[in-house]
Amino acid sequence: MHLSAEVIQTIKWDKQGLMPAIVQDANTLQVLMMAYMNAESLQRTLDIGETVFWSRSRQSFWHKGETSGNVQVVKEVRLDCDADTLLILVEPAGPACHTNATSCFFRTMSEFADKPEQL
Amino acid sequence: MHLSAEVIQTIKWDKQGLMPAIVQDANTLQVLMMAYMNAESLQRTLDIGETVFWSRSRQSFWHKGETSGNVQVVKEVRLDCDADTLLILVEPAGPACHTNATSCFFRTMSEFADKPEQL
Repeated sequence: MHLSAEVIQTIKWDKQGLMPAIVQDANTLQVLMMAYMNAESLQRTLDIGETVFWSRSRQSFWHKGETSGNVQVVKEVRLDCDADTLLILVEPAGPACHTNATSCFFRTMSEFADKPEQL
Repeated sequence: MHLSAEVIQTIKWDKQGLMPAIVQDANTLQVLMMAYMNAESLQRTLDIGETVFWSRSRQSFWHKGETSGNVQVVKEVRLDCDADTLLILVEPAGPACHTNATSCFFRTMSEFADKPEQL
């Protein structure tokens, strides 16, 4: 699918030209992670059928799993009512998290409160 | 649960002091919406057991369902690895979306591309 200029203009990008993308396992429905896409990374995602984000820390494209092999095969891309958030249903080839957890959301708030740290 | 100063300082709030909160149905696992919380709205959420967001457009607290009755009863609050995104599992009393759809993510990208609009 090619994103037309009208589609790109109607999407509500933030001031940095980014949009949050929630990644959900298409089979288990577990929420795996959240990352950000700009228009170009969304187009690349649609083109190659695997998630491609924009890394805010590295300021570069981030083809998830390119080095680890843990790519996320895109089954469906959804957009919310006010067109400012993406929901991407995927079949993951491996863990989503850099800690090797299946999902980045592996801690409850209580667990975090017991041991607050950014991992 | 009272959020300690250490917990609040360890959470990676954005420049506006906000954090995205993904809301997921605890039973169906459908992703319902995404909104934003600041430290105070997160504390209120934990206190009352229903979602309280920070409305960026209105710059005010937004107790979801306060007027519509469609509150979201919080079953679990999770935090991701780098502590910059919340995942909140809820039992919703009604539709999450202002359009009356169960989920705000009721459009596929193809459907949006056919009729691009912010609803």
